Amino acid sequence: MRVGVILSGCGFQDGAEVHESVLTLLALDRAGAEAVCFAPDIDQAKVVNHITGQDADETRNVLVESARIARGEITDVKTADAADLDALILPGGLGAAMNLCDFAVKGPDAEVNEDVAGLVRAMHAAKKPIGAICIAPALIARVLGSDGGPTLTIGTDPGTASALEACGAGHQDCAVEDFVVDTEQRIVSTPAYMLGPTIKHVAEGIERCVTEVIKLAQPAGVA
Amino acid sequence: MRVGVILSGCGFQDGAEVHESVLTLLALDRAGAEAVCFAPDIDQAKVVNHITGQDADETRNVLVESARIARGEITDVKTADAADLDALILPGGLGAAMNLCDFAVKGPDAEVNEDVAGLVRAMHAAKKPIGAICIAPALIARVLGSDGGPTLTIGTDPGTASALEACGAGHQDCAVEDFVVDTEQRIVSTPAYMLGPTIKHVAEGIERCVTEVIKLAQPAGVA
Repeated sequence: MRVGVILSGCGFQDGAEVHESVLTLLALDRAGAEAVCFAPDIDQAKVVNHITGQDADETRNVLVESARIARGEITDVKTADAADLDALILPGGLGAAMNLCDFAVKGPDAEVNEDVAGLVRAMHAAKKPIGAICIAPALIARVLGSDGGPTLTIGTDPGTASALEACGAGHQDCAVEDFVVDTEQRIVSTPAYMLGPTIKHVAEGIERCVTEVIKLAQPAGVA
Repeated sequence: MRVGVILSGCGFQDGAEVHESVLTLLALDRAGAEAVCFAPDIDQAKVVNHITGQDADETRNVLVESARIARGEITDVKTADAADLDALILPGGLGAAMNLCDFAVKGPDAEVNEDVAGLVRAMHAAKKPIGAICIAPALIARVLGSDGGPTLTIGTDPGTASALEACGAGHQDCAVEDFVVDTEQRIVSTPAYMLGPTIKHVAEGIERCVTEVIKLAQPAGVA
């Protein structure tokens, strides 16, 4: 089984959340699935100093920085073909809401990177399962909100949940160690560091989310 | 229990190996130990594009980049006090052999960052356990090789093992899922991505290494 993983940089303040990304790769490997990493070959929306939280006067490329998490095994999401993948997972981090789309700035009016949106739409049209972690369900809501309104997690912040619903999705509260599955839409989500508090809690939710995605990706009749 | 974790940047080609670092934090949290992250506040030896493997014309700071892995919860290793820690763990990645010391360039003649070396020496003098992952045992060998010659893992590359032994340490072969403990020196090591092949194998070795470090850090009489 081949599962696409869309990364969005390397660092929770301007890219992919590092723990969530690594825990996704770990859960996939332990489940016997091959992770196929992708990221857009574009500049990051910004670069943030992760000590001070301040913007840095630098330019970094999303694909190049994502390669730090993927140990170099990653390609431009423009080259991704839904026909070659059995499932798709998007870890969180602000990169998912600043680089893959601009939900962090524009909320329900967010624009989504066209290659990422195209891959999400193609997987959904092929009825292949999609997993979305942390803030990544916002991107899913923006792409698929008008297409059946998937039920998703996003944590407990009322403003973020409202923005998700304004995209046409339903929001469901969920403990960090748990996940929500929209069986009809074949979308699984878990709040991860939208709730925290620590890595062991996030790991449990991600492991269960990934396990559910893989279960949905099995051919009918396979346990 | 408080366990110091020394990071060396963010990315296996010029900093801390991201998976090894995250897996160390996960294993510590699951064991009920608090990870206290440190890194030196110095420029990286170099910055490497993790797609091409080529050097990039950039300067990055080891502490600032390490903060991407530590989610901002990290301080200058200069401020670390062995008296406040029960154990110390060094994940691998080329940063451990280029930023924390220059073993990657000078082998057995490597110089070690004086704050890192001071912390390692202080922990060792206090008989507190030290864990070293992947290439990090080379740094331990360079700091403690003349002080009893700890037995360590480093993978199976003969040149690297010879350089480790030239520092005064003993080298022991070890499977990726396993660890080696030098009970007298209270040093635990595991080869991780020196062997690979994938994250689940590395995770097993690191989890067992961390568990052994914590066991050694327990007060006498505690199981």
